[in-house]
Amino acid sequence: MKVFDEIESEVMSYARAFPRVFNKAQGEYLYDEEGNQYLDFLAGAGTLNYGHNNPVFKQALLDYIQQDGITHGLDLHTKAKREFLETFYEKILQPRGMSYVMQFTGPTGTNAVEAALKIARKYKGRENIISFTNGFHGCSLGALAATGNSHHRGASGVSMSGVSRMPYEGYLGDDIDTTAYLDKVLSDSSSGIDHPAAVLVETVQGEGGINAASVEWLRNLQDVCKKHDVLLIVDDIQAGCGRTGSYFSFEEAGIQPDIVTLSKSLSGYGLPFAVVLMKPELDQWKPGEHNGTFRGNNLAFVTATAAIDHYWSDDKFSKEVLRKGDYIEQRLQRIVEKYGDGNMTTRGRGMFRGLNCVSGELADKITSEAFRNGLVIETSGADDHVVKTLCPLTISDDNLKKALDIVEAAVAKVLKGEEVPEEHDFFASSEPEPTSVLAGAA
Amino acid sequence: MKVFDEIESEVMSYARAFPRVFNKAQGEYLYDEEGNQYLDFLAGAGTLNYGHNNPVFKQALLDYIQQDGITHGLDLHTKAKREFLETFYEKILQPRGMSYVMQFTGPTGTNAVEAALKIARKYKGRENIISFTNGFHGCSLGALAATGNSHHRGASGVSMSGVSRMPYEGYLGDDIDTTAYLDKVLSDSSSGIDHPAAVLVETVQGEGGINAASVEWLRNLQDVCKKHDVLLIVDDIQAGCGRTGSYFSFEEAGIQPDIVTLSKSLSGYGLPFAVVLMKPELDQWKPGEHNGTFRGNNLAFVTATAAIDHYWSDDKFSKEVLRKGDYIEQRLQRIVEKYGDGNMTTRGRGMFRGLNCVSGELADKITSEAFRNGLVIETSGADDHVVKTLCPLTISDDNLKKALDIVEAAVAKVLKGEEVPEEHDFFASSEPEPTSVLAGAA
Amino acid sequence: MKVFDEIESEVMSYARAFPRVFNKAQGEYLYDEEGNQYLDFLAGAGTLNYGHNNPVFKQALLDYIQQDGITHGLDLHTKAKREFLETFYEKILQPRGMSYVMQFTGPTGTNAVEAALKIARKYKGRENIISFTNGFHGCSLGALAATGNSHHRGASGVSMSGVSRMPYEGYLGDDIDTTAYLDKVLSDSSSGIDHPAAVLVETVQGEGGINAASVEWLRNLQDVCKKHDVLLIVDDIQAGCGRTGSYFSFEEAGIQPDIVTLSKSLSGYGLPFAVVLMKPELDQWKPGEHNGTFRGNNLAFVTATAAIDHYWSDDKFSKEVLRKGDYIEQRLQRIVEKYGDGNMTTRGRGMFRGLNCVSGELADKITSEAFRNGLVIETSGADDHVVKTLCPLTISDDNLKKALDIVEAAVAKVLKGEEVPEEHDFFASSEPEPTSVLAGAA
Amino acid sequence: MKVFDEIESEVMSYARAFPRVFNKAQGEYLYDEEGNQYLDFLAGAGTLNYGHNNPVFKQALLDYIQQDGITHGLDLHTKAKREFLETFYEKILQPRGMSYVMQFTGPTGTNAVEAALKIARKYKGRENIISFTNGFHGCSLGALAATGNSHHRGASGVSMSGVSRMPYEGYLGDDIDTTAYLDKVLSDSSSGIDHPAAVLVETVQGEGGINAASVEWLRNLQDVCKKHDVLLIVDDIQAGCGRTGSYFSFEEAGIQPDIVTLSKSLSGYGLPFAVVLMKPELDQWKPGEHNGTFRGNNLAFVTATAAIDHYWSDDKFSKEVLRKGDYIEQRLQRIVEKYGDGNMTTRGRGMFRGLNCVSGELADKITSEAFRNGLVIETSGADDHVVKTLCPLTISDDNLKKALDIVEAAVAKVLKGEEVPEEHDFFASSEPEPTSVLAGAA
Repeated sequence: MKVFDEIESEVMSYARAFPRVFNKAQGEYLYDEEGNQYLDFLAGAGTLNYGHNNPVFKQALLDYIQQDGITHGLDLHTKAKREFLETFYEKILQPRGMSYVMQFTGPTGTNAVEAALKIARKYKGRENIISFTNGFHGCSLGALAATGNSHHRGASGVSMSGVSRMPYEGYLGDDIDTTAYLDKVLSDSSSGIDHPAAVLVETVQGEGGINAASVEWLRNLQDVCKKHDVLLIVDDIQAGCGRTGSYFSFEEAGIQPDIVTLSKSLSGYGLPFAVVLMKPELDQWKPGEHNGTFRGNNLAFVTATAAIDHYWSDDKFSKEVLRKGDYIEQRLQRIVEKYGDGNMTTRGRGMFRGLNCVSGELADKITSEAFRNGLVIETSGADDHVVKTLCPLTISDDNLKKALDIVEAAVAKVLKGEEVPEEHDFFASSEPEPTSVLAGAA
Repeated sequence: MKVFDEIESEVMSYARAFPRVFNKAQGEYLYDEEGNQYLDFLAGAGTLNYGHNNPVFKQALLDYIQQDGITHGLDLHTKAKREFLETFYEKILQPRGMSYVMQFTGPTGTNAVEAALKIARKYKGRENIISFTNGFHGCSLGALAATGNSHHRGASGVSMSGVSRMPYEGYLGDDIDTTAYLDKVLSDSSSGIDHPAAVLVETVQGEGGINAASVEWLRNLQDVCKKHDVLLIVDDIQAGCGRTGSYFSFEEAGIQPDIVTLSKSLSGYGLPFAVVLMKPELDQWKPGEHNGTFRGNNLAFVTATAAIDHYWSDDKFSKEVLRKGDYIEQRLQRIVEKYGDGNMTTRGRGMFRGLNCVSGELADKITSEAFRNGLVIETSGADDHVVKTLCPLTISDDNLKKALDIVEAAVAKVLKGEEVPEEHDFFASSEPEPTSVLAGAA
Repeated sequence: MKVFDEIESEVMSYARAFPRVFNKAQGEYLYDEEGNQYLDFLAGAGTLNYGHNNPVFKQALLDYIQQDGITHGLDLHTKAKREFLETFYEKILQPRGMSYVMQFTGPTGTNAVEAALKIARKYKGRENIISFTNGFHGCSLGALAATGNSHHRGASGVSMSGVSRMPYEGYLGDDIDTTAYLDKVLSDSSSGIDHPAAVLVETVQGEGGINAASVEWLRNLQDVCKKHDVLLIVDDIQAGCGRTGSYFSFEEAGIQPDIVTLSKSLSGYGLPFAVVLMKPELDQWKPGEHNGTFRGNNLAFVTATAAIDHYWSDDKFSKEVLRKGDYIEQRLQRIVEKYGDGNMTTRGRGMFRGLNCVSGELADKITSEAFRNGLVIETSGADDHVVKTLCPLTISDDNLKKALDIVEAAVAKVLKGEEVPEEHDFFASSEPEPTSVLAGAA
Repeated sequence: MKVFDEIESEVMSYARAFPRVFNKAQGEYLYDEEGNQYLDFLAGAGTLNYGHNNPVFKQALLDYIQQDGITHGLDLHTKAKREFLETFYEKILQPRGMSYVMQFTGPTGTNAVEAALKIARKYKGRENIISFTNGFHGCSLGALAATGNSHHRGASGVSMSGVSRMPYEGYLGDDIDTTAYLDKVLSDSSSGIDHPAAVLVETVQGEGGINAASVEWLRNLQDVCKKHDVLLIVDDIQAGCGRTGSYFSFEEAGIQPDIVTLSKSLSGYGLPFAVVLMKPELDQWKPGEHNGTFRGNNLAFVTATAAIDHYWSDDKFSKEVLRKGDYIEQRLQRIVEKYGDGNMTTRGRGMFRGLNCVSGELADKITSEAFRNGLVIETSGADDHVVKTLCPLTISDDNLKKALDIVEAAVAKVLKGEEVPEEHDFFASSEPEPTSVLAGAA
């Protein structure tokens, strides 16, 4: 481990929680150099929906490399790119009645978000972007401005302008539909929120603590956007590619965003890859106006094509995800009931689920205990208080059960003698105040 | 009028609503060149609390000029400045138990706000400032960023960063204390609102539509600021100097802001003048770090000293303001009941009152009709929907009655055959949603 | 002095250099409470071109106040405003063949600069503004971004974007015309300087150290602006109103800026007052889009009208300023030759002159010594190394001689035993390098 | 091609210049679907220094994938990462006496630049960054602010603050060392350039038109940075990894930057990969403060390790690059002499060379003609006026000759009947002006 300590930057994070040297991975398994096997409930932070080194795509990748297929081609047309475009069109867009143009950005989610914000601002001729409390959209400065997490924002050392923050669903308590608040500030010329080019939203906030928006809220959000001539951008980087059960996470809501960003599990094999989907009329780019050396990763084209072909030609995979998701929810629900002191809750939808432990300290003890028992699992949320059950969607039922058993045992062990604190309700005391304004002054 | 049309910029506004050439003014009266007399319910947008050319200060001003007192002295010590400082200390600060250092900024409210934001950012070493929906703090770019009005913001042509907007009291309906929302976002490291240096607030939002915050809300706001180590800045430029009944508008709430800005009626005579009051420990300025050619207007020192001496040596004036304010409220209340169709409302406190006509069109017709009958009166609010009864505090009871009679007659005339529309309630339909998140997806 | 120490902010600057309490002023004289008389070579930092309390305007001001003329009228039309507009048109604009519309901004120079930048950005639809090394344009945030001085910039605590800095004349040595550099970066689409809305320039940089641009440079600057469709804004706040000999400081250069800002000596009496002059087609303001409580100071209209009437109806005053300016230059030149060790230089033009002492420490000793002998005089420049001889233009020949005698005596005394250091030439060693690029690598 | 037209975004650029569908590549060869072979002088815009699908690394990559080595591991320690770190340390850092810590950023150059700017701002506690005319550092918004090209900057739709632009070597003509200008503005507290955290520079500006800085200029730049306590960041993304003959492009200058960014050819195989090297004391990151899903691309670790092992264990490869570079220069020089009308010039060093055709139109005709003859070659520079000879460093002598023959023939054909225009010299007319300032005004 010495070389890591001496030469690698202090910026590393996961390597601290899981201090092993890994050298092999297959499906839902990770292996370290000493031959230990782990179940992977981290799944590349949502990048490994189809598991590690999925054998379905592996041979295609090996063949392509063997035959000296184009590896790096900037934005040149290649056979691999054509096959990806055709497959994505036939298997994903067309069956869903979706008409989008695709941009290959730099192969990272943050770069796709940067491009989406640029095109929205350019198209509407406005600077402001609405993003939400607890949203996460990456760490470059344009994208960073849209991210909520102060840990990441604090590192910028420079002003991040052009983004106005609005409360996500539920942030103001159950009685307020926060899209009504958005509607009000956009209707009010003195609200101080400049007319935005776009609203940028995750349907499920992964890093924000597995907060899943309801179908109603998403529809209301789309309505407010349309009412005020504002673009709707869904950042589907973590929630998309099947994580919630459908290919896009917004399908259940029946909405059609103007722009969608995809990355993480898009290549299917963990290869860097990112795209922006936009309604055709938005495609006002001049040639090369947003570029990047690694845009259009050809190896990723090959595996992404195979992934879509294999998993999304019918609805079997989708149903499997929903079935397993229900199972996870039941198991988490049982944990909540048995150990949660009335304060723990479950969160999420599909296989994008989490256990809200209210306290970050508790959540950390639970994941540490689980790791000791062979489960790689992480937390998210502002206080790292949500245990994130983000396994490959392809996990076997046996392993899914085994992993959730480890989680349950860890919770049982940690909560023996510790109590789950009550969540602070900021709005608890705010009863309607019947007394009149400044009555004392009269 | 030709020279105005030909040479003066199109930026003029009041001159359009009141197309006369005025040449004389006394107390609550304005006179035009043709000898017409008007009652002034505009009062220099809050600058003429003591009326036009108040005779109490007039002689002091004439004497000072006659004797070649210093007119322009940059920030040199002058006798006039010393007398102002002493009087302000003895009559205003000391009796209220307030300990503040005073900075003479450029002689405009916006410059005082600029200086207040600078000192807050410098002292706390943070960039973000919280300001509120419908707030108004001036038109220079630092101050403009804190202003809500898109009419003014839209003219900047440049990014106005460093300000996060929060809902003012009542903006989210009656059930939500918006200071709880502020508390939540400042407690939540992923809220996306950077830890601010200060909160900037008006206790009554004048340009925003005469929105008066309650005592409870102001106290809660101070509590949230203290809890999160954030400075509280009260912009008392329009609400201060007696407009609400007490010298500072926040006295009833019993709070002690860290920074207070004053301007408008501070000189008492309509002379350009502005100060920042700050807790002594905040006074970390280096010499000349914020400067300005006209800081410390000596003619204004003279009249401001006389104004404080005359009106604030005891509580008689204060009581008079409250008494007249109650009278205005009763009259406006009667108008609301007689003509308001259940939709008009009154707003404000002290002599800082208004009539919310819901519709800007209606309000405009009312003020136009009033002007035809000799009353200069204006509107405010996002849609210019609030008729603003901003007369000199020194107005005689007779003239106050006469002016409100004109208002009532105008309302009666305008509303004959027109209806006051219902105010749109953005949160009306947002009932608690009992159905679970994405139930349909399961 | 106690009240100043206890209650006035540490931000004060001139009061530190001249620790007296002043109570009277006439023409070029200042008087303190103890009856001491001083010659004033500070002149309100350029605000008192016509001296303190000029008797020509004093009676007009007293009469106006006596007759209850409008003191505060927002932007309402008034008789005083009309007379000012007419006089300015007839005596200043028309004889010079200048066609401008006039905007009354908040009554400070910085507010006029803010308005000028706003209108330029709005009109051109571009954000960037070019300003120059050592420029000074005020301390509000929009204006501050255009100011060079880090002392003032450092206090902002917030990003000041939208301004690109270019070298002023002479900044790159005598061999480079810096307008050619500007031309190059505006011609080069990869220069990294975004196409600006406007160039903002002082013809003589007062705070920057009395740097006077040549006629050729100003003409070239106008040519470059025209070539690239960029507005030219001359900030004539300190150099205008006769300081350089003509009413506008750019008249000698024969240029016609698109926008001109005036303030400081505009009112003639030290009263807060500022205007923006703009070519009629630029006047795209919507009503009230840039506003301010004290815009259009009526007392200032009265004195400004009188000042223009009296001093600018013919060219006598202008010639007097040039004659006295020549005298100042001769005296300063003599000082340079006698005491300057070959390193001191003179700077400026008209009565906008200074003595470059190279060292701020020396300059400070000289002004301190002069103050001990009854002369109020200050320094400017990045290191406060330039003694600024900024007396009223109306000073008598006797007093001008007396004051310059004091300066000379102070220089003589301070430089007895001290040497004036050589100015550092950053470009001295940069000879053309004949050796080829990276020869060693071949 | 239909699917590209219908579904791929208009943002594509290279695909327009080379409208073929490529399906195979080996070394310096590209092949299209119809079996046509091309010599590649684009080389992935500097990403393919070791050629396409280099057989030396190919087997290592195939073996790694075959054995289910970790493909995606966030920042987990892996065997592949350890081997890369060890190899980079032993073969690159240690022999050059360089002590750096390595950060794996998102796998794109722009993300490495973002991280470098963040760490510099964080470490120095200052916001400003100095970058240079014609610099190119990527298209995300933080990185974009540092990029000169208006084509890319114009797309942002948002303010890009925090960067001050300075002239690169030669930008002000041959007589001015532009580092002296930088020294002056950093020495001058009124220069208007805020004290920067860092200077960001390319030793050879690739996109900017193959502008190569001299050894002297780079040393002076480092001296100025040290003098003013400013970090020096070399963006070696395009010039590094052997392109100029040494591994780092700044080795000949003998400087040691505080931060270095690498990407493009770092993986050796065209795989997305980027790192930041920083002096150990700068590594003040908190865990995960700058993150990214694809940081630490394990497939790239494998090929990068093999590339360094094979090419950088001794100085043979380096010498070959210098030898071929000299050959390219001789050939380009001959073209310039034969066809350049005295106006064409050569640019660059090592195998980072270009032919400055002055006119973008000419350059475009030349590359189009070359493409018709089987050479893929592009232009760069503000006006796309420089033909960029960016072939794989591993190209055979025969193919290098063949490609340059094609270039020469294309130049000969295009320039038959057309003339190379003279480069515009902005500073030509700026002779020292002997006449004094505003002499005419006296």
